[in-house]
Amino acid sequence: MNQMDLVLGIDIGGTNTTFGYVDRTGTCMAEDTMPTLAEEGPAAFFPRLAERAGALWKPLNGYRLVGIGVGAPNGNYYRSTIEDPPNLPWGFVDVRAAMARYWDVPLAVTNDANAAAFGELMFGAGRNMRDFIVITLGTGLGSGVVVNGELVHGHSGFAGEIGHTIVEPGGRLCGCGLRGCLETYASATGLLLTAKELLSERPDPSTLRDRPREDLTSRDVHAAALEGDSIALEAFERTGAILGRKLAETVAHTSPEAIFLFGGLTSAGDLLFAPTGRALEENLFHVFRGTVKLVPSSIPMGQAAILGAGALIWRELERPQA
Amino acid sequence: MNQMDLVLGIDIGGTNTTFGYVDRTGTCMAEDTMPTLAEEGPAAFFPRLAERAGALWKPLNGYRLVGIGVGAPNGNYYRSTIEDPPNLPWGFVDVRAAMARYWDVPLAVTNDANAAAFGELMFGAGRNMRDFIVITLGTGLGSGVVVNGELVHGHSGFAGEIGHTIVEPGGRLCGCGLRGCLETYASATGLLLTAKELLSERPDPSTLRDRPREDLTSRDVHAAALEGDSIALEAFERTGAILGRKLAETVAHTSPEAIFLFGGLTSAGDLLFAPTGRALEENLFHVFRGTVKLVPSSIPMGQAAILGAGALIWRELERPQA
Repeated sequence: MNQMDLVLGIDIGGTNTTFGYVDRTGTCMAEDTMPTLAEEGPAAFFPRLAERAGALWKPLNGYRLVGIGVGAPNGNYYRSTIEDPPNLPWGFVDVRAAMARYWDVPLAVTNDANAAAFGELMFGAGRNMRDFIVITLGTGLGSGVVVNGELVHGHSGFAGEIGHTIVEPGGRLCGCGLRGCLETYASATGLLLTAKELLSERPDPSTLRDRPREDLTSRDVHAAALEGDSIALEAFERTGAILGRKLAETVAHTSPEAIFLFGGLTSAGDLLFAPTGRALEENLFHVFRGTVKLVPSSIPMGQAAILGAGALIWRELERPQA
Repeated sequence: MNQMDLVLGIDIGGTNTTFGYVDRTGTCMAEDTMPTLAEEGPAAFFPRLAERAGALWKPLNGYRLVGIGVGAPNGNYYRSTIEDPPNLPWGFVDVRAAMARYWDVPLAVTNDANAAAFGELMFGAGRNMRDFIVITLGTGLGSGVVVNGELVHGHSGFAGEIGHTIVEPGGRLCGCGLRGCLETYASATGLLLTAKELLSERPDPSTLRDRPREDLTSRDVHAAALEGDSIALEAFERTGAILGRKLAETVAHTSPEAIFLFGGLTSAGDLLFAPTGRALEENLFHVFRGTVKLVPSSIPMGQAAILGAGALIWRELERPQA
């Protein structure tokens, strides 16, 4: 690859879409964000994206665009589609067809958590690992699984949906229709719900009682925990205990060298990592004990989505042709 | 590879060791079984194995031995070792060193369930699949995970220990020291224990009550179920429900095209497959529904262990050298 080659990395989210031009070393040469305006539908979205990304390209003349990577909820790698994600009410979208009207370069699509794993694989600490997992903790819980140095897409193209494994049969109702899914407990949403349950269950004084329940956010729980609030601290303990227990099962499947935690919730640091790590080790089958590192993602959060989507297509471009 | 090339496939079990010479097409040219006599230790075992396998080779002169594959409990692929398995009290055994005294050909070691997966990959229905799982249901529950056409060993070399994921926190004590492991429920041992619990819980008449509890075997439960015994039928239902629920989690990790069930318990056929398949589909995240086949292994049970160990080394011999 040439030093003047760039790829366009795009992260389509339910609220915002970020995109940027990324070189082979993981440097983002230019980036921008626009509201997704999901309600206007994909027919309005893609022309707007093309215009904005075209404007961002202008100062980069002299460079050459060699590919486009897209991370999106329920992005399917095999079909280059977005398939009916709960948080982006577009139904089934043929991303390849939509983009082909504006660009004539190789394109690859995957889901946002897989894109994060591609970023780790090409530009992060995962560069030197053959087997690792990336867990994204935001509104939901996403995961990307790397085995033998390759991202796992699986037969369906949707491998790595650990957020929808069940931790509590008959438990919290998940957006996916199942009950007791991991992401209903281990996510910003899950943490907040656990804190609210604790406020009802326990008499402990808590600053979280100072505001109406419906106004509370996961940030409030984080802030309260930092001040030693016992309800907030216990909410993190429970969240970590559930997450760690499930991660032990993940280890039993693919035996990763590291599990990278990524996303808003990880800013809580030890409040989250300590109970998660404890529960992980306690629940590991003995042959795996001491073999797995639980660490924060090494990709800077601000650019991670763009870098991940960029890494996806860099990887694709460098794949030996079959 | 030459048509006259053979590999030696060896399956070391807690009770018996079977071995045979296997050609590249999966034909076993000669096979034999000997008691493992685990209590005599590895120092007595390997010379005896070498003698027996040497005798079995005699009529095969004209052929050429090109490699040896070994399946063994807690067999480690990276280190060619057996590492302290619960059902073979040998501690840590350097299989490579032990075998090198008798043979000077390439050697590979893995655990018994992974060997079964190698057999499926080279000689079975897995030949045409990139992503599948093999579950062995015997005294315990073993598993081999194939992703992107390669067996998953993971960072530790022990990937695919689904039998030691937890289905019931605080549940049945497992030989591994954890509580509530899948294999304490979904295995011949687990089925029997479930039937015994049902005999205590329920007043239903059952032919299983005709004999002392301690004499009952999983075969008795199978036989009773075939005669419509309600306790035995319910034991299969519960076993399948637990197994199917956990397999749904496995699917969420690697999204296999098929899950092959293998081993003694699968002779129960629909008694096992029907409830397992139902629970699997019910617990699948929607994107995976209808994407996974639950099927019996396509490798004949009698030779599966030898063919699997043979496939392991065939695969190794054909791997492009890095």
